[in-house]
Amino acid sequence: MNTKPTIDELFDRRITYPDVDLKDRLDDLVGLDDHKARLTKMISLLVNPAGLEAWAEKYHPGANGVLGTVLRRPPLVVFEGDVGSGKTELAETIGDAVARQEDIDITLYPLSLSTRGQGRVGEMTQLLTAAFDHTIMEAEKLKAISGKARGAVILLVDEADALAQSREFAQMHHEDRAGVNAFIRGIDRIGKGHLPAAVIMCTNRLGALDPAIRRRAADILTFERPNETQRHAVLSSPLKQLGFSQAQIDAVVAATGALNGRAYGFTFSDLKQRLLPQIVLDAYPHRPVDPARAVEIAQTIVPTPPFMEDTS
Amino acid sequence: MNTKPTIDELFDRRITYPDVDLKDRLDDLVGLDDHKARLTKMISLLVNPAGLEAWAEKYHPGANGVLGTVLRRPPLVVFEGDVGSGKTELAETIGDAVARQEDIDITLYPLSLSTRGQGRVGEMTQLLTAAFDHTIMEAEKLKAISGKARGAVILLVDEADALAQSREFAQMHHEDRAGVNAFIRGIDRIGKGHLPAAVIMCTNRLGALDPAIRRRAADILTFERPNETQRHAVLSSPLKQLGFSQAQIDAVVAATGALNGRAYGFTFSDLKQRLLPQIVLDAYPHRPVDPARAVEIAQTIVPTPPFMEDTS
Amino acid sequence: MNTKPTIDELFDRRITYPDVDLKDRLDDLVGLDDHKARLTKMISLLVNPAGLEAWAEKYHPGANGVLGTVLRRPPLVVFEGDVGSGKTELAETIGDAVARQEDIDITLYPLSLSTRGQGRVGEMTQLLTAAFDHTIMEAEKLKAISGKARGAVILLVDEADALAQSREFAQMHHEDRAGVNAFIRGIDRIGKGHLPAAVIMCTNRLGALDPAIRRRAADILTFERPNETQRHAVLSSPLKQLGFSQAQIDAVVAATGALNGRAYGFTFSDLKQRLLPQIVLDAYPHRPVDPARAVEIAQTIVPTPPFMEDTS
Amino acid sequence: MNTKPTIDELFDRRITYPDVDLKDRLDDLVGLDDHKARLTKMISLLVNPAGLEAWAEKYHPGANGVLGTVLRRPPLVVFEGDVGSGKTELAETIGDAVARQEDIDITLYPLSLSTRGQGRVGEMTQLLTAAFDHTIMEAEKLKAISGKARGAVILLVDEADALAQSREFAQMHHEDRAGVNAFIRGIDRIGKGHLPAAVIMCTNRLGALDPAIRRRAADILTFERPNETQRHAVLSSPLKQLGFSQAQIDAVVAATGALNGRAYGFTFSDLKQRLLPQIVLDAYPHRPVDPARAVEIAQTIVPTPPFMEDTS
Amino acid sequence: MNTKPTIDELFDRRITYPDVDLKDRLDDLVGLDDHKARLTKMISLLVNPAGLEAWAEKYHPGANGVLGTVLRRPPLVVFEGDVGSGKTELAETIGDAVARQEDIDITLYPLSLSTRGQGRVGEMTQLLTAAFDHTIMEAEKLKAISGKARGAVILLVDEADALAQSREFAQMHHEDRAGVNAFIRGIDRIGKGHLPAAVIMCTNRLGALDPAIRRRAADILTFERPNETQRHAVLSSPLKQLGFSQAQIDAVVAATGALNGRAYGFTFSDLKQRLLPQIVLDAYPHRPVDPARAVEIAQTIVPTPPFMEDTS
Amino acid sequence: MNTKPTIDELFDRRITYPDVDLKDRLDDLVGLDDHKARLTKMISLLVNPAGLEAWAEKYHPGANGVLGTVLRRPPLVVFEGDVGSGKTELAETIGDAVARQEDIDITLYPLSLSTRGQGRVGEMTQLLTAAFDHTIMEAEKLKAISGKARGAVILLVDEADALAQSREFAQMHHEDRAGVNAFIRGIDRIGKGHLPAAVIMCTNRLGALDPAIRRRAADILTFERPNETQRHAVLSSPLKQLGFSQAQIDAVVAATGALNGRAYGFTFSDLKQRLLPQIVLDAYPHRPVDPARAVEIAQTIVPTPPFMEDTS
Repeated sequence: MNTKPTIDELFDRRITYPDVDLKDRLDDLVGLDDHKARLTKMISLLVNPAGLEAWAEKYHPGANGVLGTVLRRPPLVVFEGDVGSGKTELAETIGDAVARQEDIDITLYPLSLSTRGQGRVGEMTQLLTAAFDHTIMEAEKLKAISGKARGAVILLVDEADALAQSREFAQMHHEDRAGVNAFIRGIDRIGKGHLPAAVIMCTNRLGALDPAIRRRAADILTFERPNETQRHAVLSSPLKQLGFSQAQIDAVVAATGALNGRAYGFTFSDLKQRLLPQIVLDAYPHRPVDPARAVEIAQTIVPTPPFMEDTS
Repeated sequence: MNTKPTIDELFDRRITYPDVDLKDRLDDLVGLDDHKARLTKMISLLVNPAGLEAWAEKYHPGANGVLGTVLRRPPLVVFEGDVGSGKTELAETIGDAVARQEDIDITLYPLSLSTRGQGRVGEMTQLLTAAFDHTIMEAEKLKAISGKARGAVILLVDEADALAQSREFAQMHHEDRAGVNAFIRGIDRIGKGHLPAAVIMCTNRLGALDPAIRRRAADILTFERPNETQRHAVLSSPLKQLGFSQAQIDAVVAATGALNGRAYGFTFSDLKQRLLPQIVLDAYPHRPVDPARAVEIAQTIVPTPPFMEDTS
Repeated sequence: MNTKPTIDELFDRRITYPDVDLKDRLDDLVGLDDHKARLTKMISLLVNPAGLEAWAEKYHPGANGVLGTVLRRPPLVVFEGDVGSGKTELAETIGDAVARQEDIDITLYPLSLSTRGQGRVGEMTQLLTAAFDHTIMEAEKLKAISGKARGAVILLVDEADALAQSREFAQMHHEDRAGVNAFIRGIDRIGKGHLPAAVIMCTNRLGALDPAIRRRAADILTFERPNETQRHAVLSSPLKQLGFSQAQIDAVVAATGALNGRAYGFTFSDLKQRLLPQIVLDAYPHRPVDPARAVEIAQTIVPTPPFMEDTS
Repeated sequence: MNTKPTIDELFDRRITYPDVDLKDRLDDLVGLDDHKARLTKMISLLVNPAGLEAWAEKYHPGANGVLGTVLRRPPLVVFEGDVGSGKTELAETIGDAVARQEDIDITLYPLSLSTRGQGRVGEMTQLLTAAFDHTIMEAEKLKAISGKARGAVILLVDEADALAQSREFAQMHHEDRAGVNAFIRGIDRIGKGHLPAAVIMCTNRLGALDPAIRRRAADILTFERPNETQRHAVLSSPLKQLGFSQAQIDAVVAATGALNGRAYGFTFSDLKQRLLPQIVLDAYPHRPVDPARAVEIAQTIVPTPPFMEDTS
Repeated sequence: MNTKPTIDELFDRRITYPDVDLKDRLDDLVGLDDHKARLTKMISLLVNPAGLEAWAEKYHPGANGVLGTVLRRPPLVVFEGDVGSGKTELAETIGDAVARQEDIDITLYPLSLSTRGQGRVGEMTQLLTAAFDHTIMEAEKLKAISGKARGAVILLVDEADALAQSREFAQMHHEDRAGVNAFIRGIDRIGKGHLPAAVIMCTNRLGALDPAIRRRAADILTFERPNETQRHAVLSSPLKQLGFSQAQIDAVVAATGALNGRAYGFTFSDLKQRLLPQIVLDAYPHRPVDPARAVEIAQTIVPTPPFMEDTS
Repeated sequence: MNTKPTIDELFDRRITYPDVDLKDRLDDLVGLDDHKARLTKMISLLVNPAGLEAWAEKYHPGANGVLGTVLRRPPLVVFEGDVGSGKTELAETIGDAVARQEDIDITLYPLSLSTRGQGRVGEMTQLLTAAFDHTIMEAEKLKAISGKARGAVILLVDEADALAQSREFAQMHHEDRAGVNAFIRGIDRIGKGHLPAAVIMCTNRLGALDPAIRRRAADILTFERPNETQRHAVLSSPLKQLGFSQAQIDAVVAATGALNGRAYGFTFSDLKQRLLPQIVLDAYPHRPVDPARAVEIAQTIVPTPPFMEDTS
């Protein structure tokens, strides 16, 4: 690891907003309106901090002092919740809402899994540092000399568990500890630079997150498995395409909830990656899809079990 | 490990389909019809994605949108289940069904056990990466410029437990973690390339599979010890060859089930690798096989105990 | 790590006192008057040991002997307590009080997280030694040939848990043990040099602190989550700026205490970094802040759980 | 370990059959007739696979298909059982029976304990690979172009526990895992070469054997502590030499069983290595052996406790 | 660590006796008269073994044989007991008593904490060996050709826990084990050289001391927290200096015992390093010390908890 | 460790028998007559195997066959038992009995603690191998061409626990495992060479001894704390020298047994290294020993606690 890692080694697939497909995917995320609003505001303010001052002048003329507590927050949001609860989907699409609202371009840099490195001493630190270097360099280009930034950057750290594991666990390996430190330094560098850049970290093990990271989070958004309304919103459109009636759709939705003594229903992923494809493939290539059979298929699928935190 | 590993170091014994012996072995796999159908469709669609569109045009003209959920699934199927439940047998023979249906050649690349490496830092990652490099290179040759691919590749990862162990276990070694990452990258590379290549992973420790791998699985097929019908199908032909009557065969089949307070019966392997050879060798070289003695032999064999997951 | 680490690698952001902003932040720390007084005296005596003799001459003319027990104490203070209980805030601001009282300049050197190193053998020791080298060099410049020092230095070791973990835990790693030793040597070097330098160590795992460090602490100050009075002091001024009445402020303060069966209230950080920004952002950009809504927001926030010591 | 290990480093003491002393030792092994028969047949078939076809032609003319299940079994037999239950003795002597029956020479290669290596990374793998290289080279010399082989080779892996420990244990060391892989590759190479070579592996921890090895075993033979008949067979001849009457021998045999609340009797080793020498030495040099005293001696010896599997 | 460590790296601060300050500190150690007498005799005999013969001639003319058991004891004394119970203080001052009684110079070499090394393989062994080399070289200079030595050396190993941890703990690291061995060799070298040198080892984890070290200890002296008399002796003089009456002193002494359900009182360190300084600083700079307030201060201090041995 | 270790690095202090002092120490070992007899016979037979044949010819003319079981035993004896129970003392003195009986010279080589090495990979193996090389070289010089050897060698492995720890413990380190293997090879080399050399291994953790070593032991001798008779034998002579009456001696002996609810009495070491020296030093230099005071001293000494095996 003597040479600098390339951008392709650091990031998986960059996404630029606005993008109409991503707008559709964001709109498809039902039941997360509060999450969307909080995220949009947070990222917007990184781009356009003057917006908050304008608001305060209008509604709270004497409140300039309180604005600092908002603007000084580290540019880190943690998404925590079960596997398949929509964390990655929202992280990959929220940029579109901000891009449209602020009328700028936004780029998402998803930290590659390879950034976890291959176990060489010091490697994870080098890779993380390089990833933050790149993020900061891009954000500096976009930063306005005055007023609103010309664009923004989102660094996405998905499946962050190993990276940011808590030092509460005594047996933590030095390499991991170094990763936590490199991450904290990266967050602090963005924050101090007042750059138009945000970091989104997704984890299904909030309890294992290092306190030093947790306390730097401006916001911690919790994600849950889809409830009936959300499952309906996910399934309704594709099933309608396949000719299902409303009652038939309802039957499938019901079959994907917590049933028969099991404590949990389908995840978003279970619905999209497993149920819908199996309904299609079951019919393919010689028959049309049969709504009654679709319910049967839903009943045979065992939803992904919730991620159990290892408390040992 | 400075030089590239050769193809013989990476893979155990390549198998090309169609092959009449493998067709026989596939046909011998009784009770797995649903698994066979789902696998065949999945691999066929990788070879010939246009088939799905043709189907939709015919049966669901307005449903083009839903096809993406099927075609975008990662090209990974997980076979999970007990030792000796037929996972390897199906993985090694399913290619024949697809080859015949699509009228193309298919090649199976079984990842060598040596790919787990010998403990040198970074080695497992290099070997896995090389294995995926090779798989992808072969699949690219077969990919059609338009329409149906001229062939397909299956990468088989048998006994995948060590390779893909869950990061839920806090004490996981960096080397293993790197293996998980290399594996995920490989799956993603095949998926993004829209190549005629599928990955089959066999494990008897589904609970220990890394969530990042589990969620990439297009399908998880569960295998169980053979039930009475399946045991009958396995034993019937060879015992008939040895002159057993139907009743005598039934007696042997019964003696291989869950009996006498033990909770489990014979595995497929127990039937083929232990029971049948012992029946033959007991008689060899001076006597013919005696059906009554065969039942006695079945009663003295202790079936392989189920693999107990280590939950520590 | 063959070259000496630079000062920027060793320390995060140096702070020089007196500074009017830091005075404000120190004044904002309500309910910690005893801590402030003890700290101020301790640091003042390092700068001006003659002050104690003057005091003794005035009030206890025969008590010169007892002064040695005070002046010989190692220049180490441990701040221990829960996450977000004000440890870092006091450590970063107390220098202002001493600077004003003694009419000198004081500089704070916050040990960088990177000083924990990246797991190379011997690295943490080298970094810690370099950090103490620098602290001592600066303090020696400020030491008076006779009488009062011309300035003082504070070395801040925040989140010191990993660094100074107890050797009571048998599984402690050599690298960590070496870090403990380097730290003890550093403390001893400052103490023997009679330098105008103090070390403040913050930890939320007092029980895990190495006994050899614990017994060198001149003082151990305990920090707790803010009580109602302290929460009121924190929230009162910003909420007033937003136009809240006294009763409305009280309602928010009440909503941040231990409620509804949960055993703990908001931390200082929860109040400043999470509650106030969310109150503002909830209204931004189109509405003024609504006091009734602020209470609702407070009720939805789950306070940071207390740090549980790992006793395994 | 840059140079190839020599044959003397790899193997302990080669044994060639037929050998009259070993015939005697094999004949002395009472109560193991079934084990002897199964082993002899298995090894004979490796030497002379045509024998099975001849048998089938004679007794089961239509059963050629079933022969493959016998001949395709991997050439591995596992001996499992308690310390001192005769595993090593049978492994070291069975070659004599096959040599006589097939009228060929057979050589036993006992894998040296040093093959476990000294902890250098990759070393166990290199040594095991070298041992299999040698075994295969020797077997290839003996393989017949057609018909019966001119000789055979047995590779004995005694005390195989560390070598082939199960991957079920999560904390398994990479070095050990590499050893398992090297072993499996070796077995597979012999099997694919259709060589006149068999591998016998002895273990007292069957539960800890890697499933990938267990499932390759053509046969697993279980050994137990000697029962009364077997103990009698062991002791009868030497005690008669010392002038014991039948009743006196019976008394000694009885004193070596499970007695006085202890759950187990003497092992074969306890009888030969401890009891008989102590009876002799107790009398030596000035008295003849006294049968009554022999019983007393047997009563004072605590039999070797059974090997307890470590289930942690 | 290729070059020899210097004497300053090996030892903290050499102390030479007699020294009037150290005599005072030794005299201040109340309640340890038996420890002082045993230690003085033991070290005196190392300097002057002829003294014992003279004694025997006078009082037990026929008992020369028994003297060997005394003179052959290894020159190691273990001080064990709770943190702050006076172990280090006695170890640093006892030399003065022997120096005065035997009318010679004695030098104390306190093994530096850095001798524990920084985790490099073999380093602790090298450092310990160097420390013993130095001790032995100095002692050899002082050894008499005949009669009484011209001086003596004491090697002090404080906080010896990590160094001499028991091999009873299976997970013990090789590096630590090597440290134990180096230590034992050092003790044996001094003993065999009949040198005027003693080793004092302080530990608060007697149970964790390696049996091979424990059995070499000529004496194991146990230290406890100060009882009321001892606390009185510590506090009486400084409080009198501050103008306390006898009753006021008694009140402070009472407040430092085991009180209010807590099972232990103040340690020597708690009294000197924490209580007395806080009494002074509480008054400083504007008030004289107030005896009533001193009792309050004592009541607010939580005594250092006893060191709990880690039995995991 | 590239150069061969010297003999002084390998062994602690060679002892040559016969030696009158050692005869005295052997005679002092009361209550171990059976151990002495068995050891003497075993070592004598290594020197003079013809002795056994002569005995058989005289008393059991037809029993030549049984002699092999005696003469083929590996030349290893294990001494197991509590700390301070006389294991080392017997190991260091038994050579004298054999030397006198066979009228030859015998040399004891006590394996140095340093042979455990300092943690470098492969080092323990090299040192052990070198130690066995030396032992074997010496024994070969002494071996007779025919008849009785001209001398014998005893290799003593004291405190063998770490060296020969059981592979039953899964977490065993490779380095240790290599040590076990080197040890077994050494034993086997002596045995196969029919050399006049015996190995005595002392351990206080029999349960932790590797089964492969345990089963090679020709004899396992158990040692216990001294009973009243043995304690009397140890104390009687020195106390008589100091002028104690028989009743006074009895009182001291009684005070060293299991008393006052404690489950164990003094070890041999406690009696010799702690009790007797303290009785002398208590009186020295100004008073004669007082028998009543001696009992008091015995009552204040806490006997060494038994070594508890670590079963984790």
